Amino acid sequence: MSAAAPYSAVTAFLNEAAGLADAALDRFLPPAGETPARLHEAMRYSVMAGGKRLRPALVLGACRALGGDAARCAPAMAAVEIFHTYTLIHDDLPAMDDDDLRRGRPTCHKAFDEATAILAGDALLTLSLELAAEHGAEAVRVLARAGGSRGVVGGQQDDLDAEGRVLTGTPADRALLERIHRGKTAALIRASCELGALAANASNIQRAALAAFGEAMGLAFQVADDVLDHTADAATLGKTPGKDAASGKLTYVTLLGLDDARAEARRLLDSALEALAPLNAPELAQLARFAVERDR
Amino acid sequence: MSAAAPYSAVTAFLNEAAGLADAALDRFLPPAGETPARLHEAMRYSVMAGGKRLRPALVLGACRALGGDAARCAPAMAAVEIFHTYTLIHDDLPAMDDDDLRRGRPTCHKAFDEATAILAGDALLTLSLELAAEHGAEAVRVLARAGGSRGVVGGQQDDLDAEGRVLTGTPADRALLERIHRGKTAALIRASCELGALAANASNIQRAALAAFGEAMGLAFQVADDVLDHTADAATLGKTPGKDAASGKLTYVTLLGLDDARAEARRLLDSALEALAPLNAPELAQLARFAVERDR
Repeated sequence: MSAAAPYSAVTAFLNEAAGLADAALDRFLPPAGETPARLHEAMRYSVMAGGKRLRPALVLGACRALGGDAARCAPAMAAVEIFHTYTLIHDDLPAMDDDDLRRGRPTCHKAFDEATAILAGDALLTLSLELAAEHGAEAVRVLARAGGSRGVVGGQQDDLDAEGRVLTGTPADRALLERIHRGKTAALIRASCELGALAANASNIQRAALAAFGEAMGLAFQVADDVLDHTADAATLGKTPGKDAASGKLTYVTLLGLDDARAEARRLLDSALEALAPLNAPELAQLARFAVERDR
Repeated sequence: MSAAAPYSAVTAFLNEAAGLADAALDRFLPPAGETPARLHEAMRYSVMAGGKRLRPALVLGACRALGGDAARCAPAMAAVEIFHTYTLIHDDLPAMDDDDLRRGRPTCHKAFDEATAILAGDALLTLSLELAAEHGAEAVRVLARAGGSRGVVGGQQDDLDAEGRVLTGTPADRALLERIHRGKTAALIRASCELGALAANASNIQRAALAAFGEAMGLAFQVADDVLDHTADAATLGKTPGKDAASGKLTYVTLLGLDDARAEARRLLDSALEALAPLNAPELAQLARFAVERDR
């Protein structure tokens, strides 16, 4: 693992992207006071809860790598973060992961109520695809395919179906876990890179390179997340550590062990960086390294 | 009210539209056996539960009124029915209306489980907007705006917020009820007409006429639904009759009384037919009459 110094550039980029993302989110979300006020408050409560804004940063990094600027990809930056927030709200529901805390604050259904949380998630999902439409119908297809039953939602269902299964470390378990993470995490990270590419009018070759980068980086990010969940403490993480392991949930660490999970994250990171080679995308490369090597 | 005879034409049109809609739905929904199978089964279980397919019929009627044909609007026909089904699945959840029966069968969360029902709804919402994208980015915007926090989802939140309020028949109550129904029902019916128009490359004037028709017809349809809920019996309706009244829910009948609610439905129907006057749209006119005067 690297020392702290090389991260100063990526930290500056993440801060810049977060500032731009927050401004775009504030612009595209309905005002909290607008009727129905409870719904619009819940939407803003969850979207404006902070977080690293990693997905908008990927949109921005991909767009800039192809010569686009932040103004051009602002709707896409907001779209991916709004989409991500909807998945968090619904995943946290009592019928799903039943989480009380998210980013150190009460989850949406705890701060409001379950019905409002379901509706706020629905409205955010709808808004994210409306914003993607600002970049044309193909951008809608990219986000919808990443998000649907063959992407994020399918990964969540696979994850629920896998709960309580006896893990034997067979190739089938490994394939299931990879499918879960491709769906739950990699699909949206890949879509973020593709939306940034579309916002910059990418060629098919450029778009494919950024999609391949996003896919590998997304998987690397999820493996790193599994590792973090096993090693970090509650204060750093903002959520209950080791919860996945305690519940017998399928993760890369429960399947491969800690050392092999770390090696897998590294292998995926290398593959992500390789996909970037034909492009001039230093921000994306730094972001990928940071996402895998971060300790919080 | 008219005799039964004038409805033979509309019945034939509805049957034709339902056949076309079912074929489009079967084509655009992922196969039930595809992984994750439970999710894809739940999606098909709810979408293929039957129903009048009124919204796809409106898409088809609007498209044909402008010279388009069924092949041209098939994605939009599927999109509006898939969108409608997602709203039914989420509305039926225990945290929302908590319904066990829908179209005479167990609701999605009863036939499967709550988590799967939430995810099936999310995946259907996502798929509906992906299908709208087949008609271009503007079609996505139309469906997303109709469906979001300023449309369907907002209407549902208004409806939940209104529960248990003391109704005094004030202008404020009336305005709230109208906002609920504009959101919950009229927004999607209007969007169905607009999507049919977009599929047929409508002029702005044609599109505006069809939007105005859809808005008035959607409100008329909902008032008629309130009336039906108070007068039909369980066998005809396929759901528990009088449930809204028993729970003190705000409806046109609880607010205006049965006679005035019927008069309001008639007034809205006239207004819908007036909007159609500049167009040659006999199927839509018949459909509007049928939707308001139906007894089941």
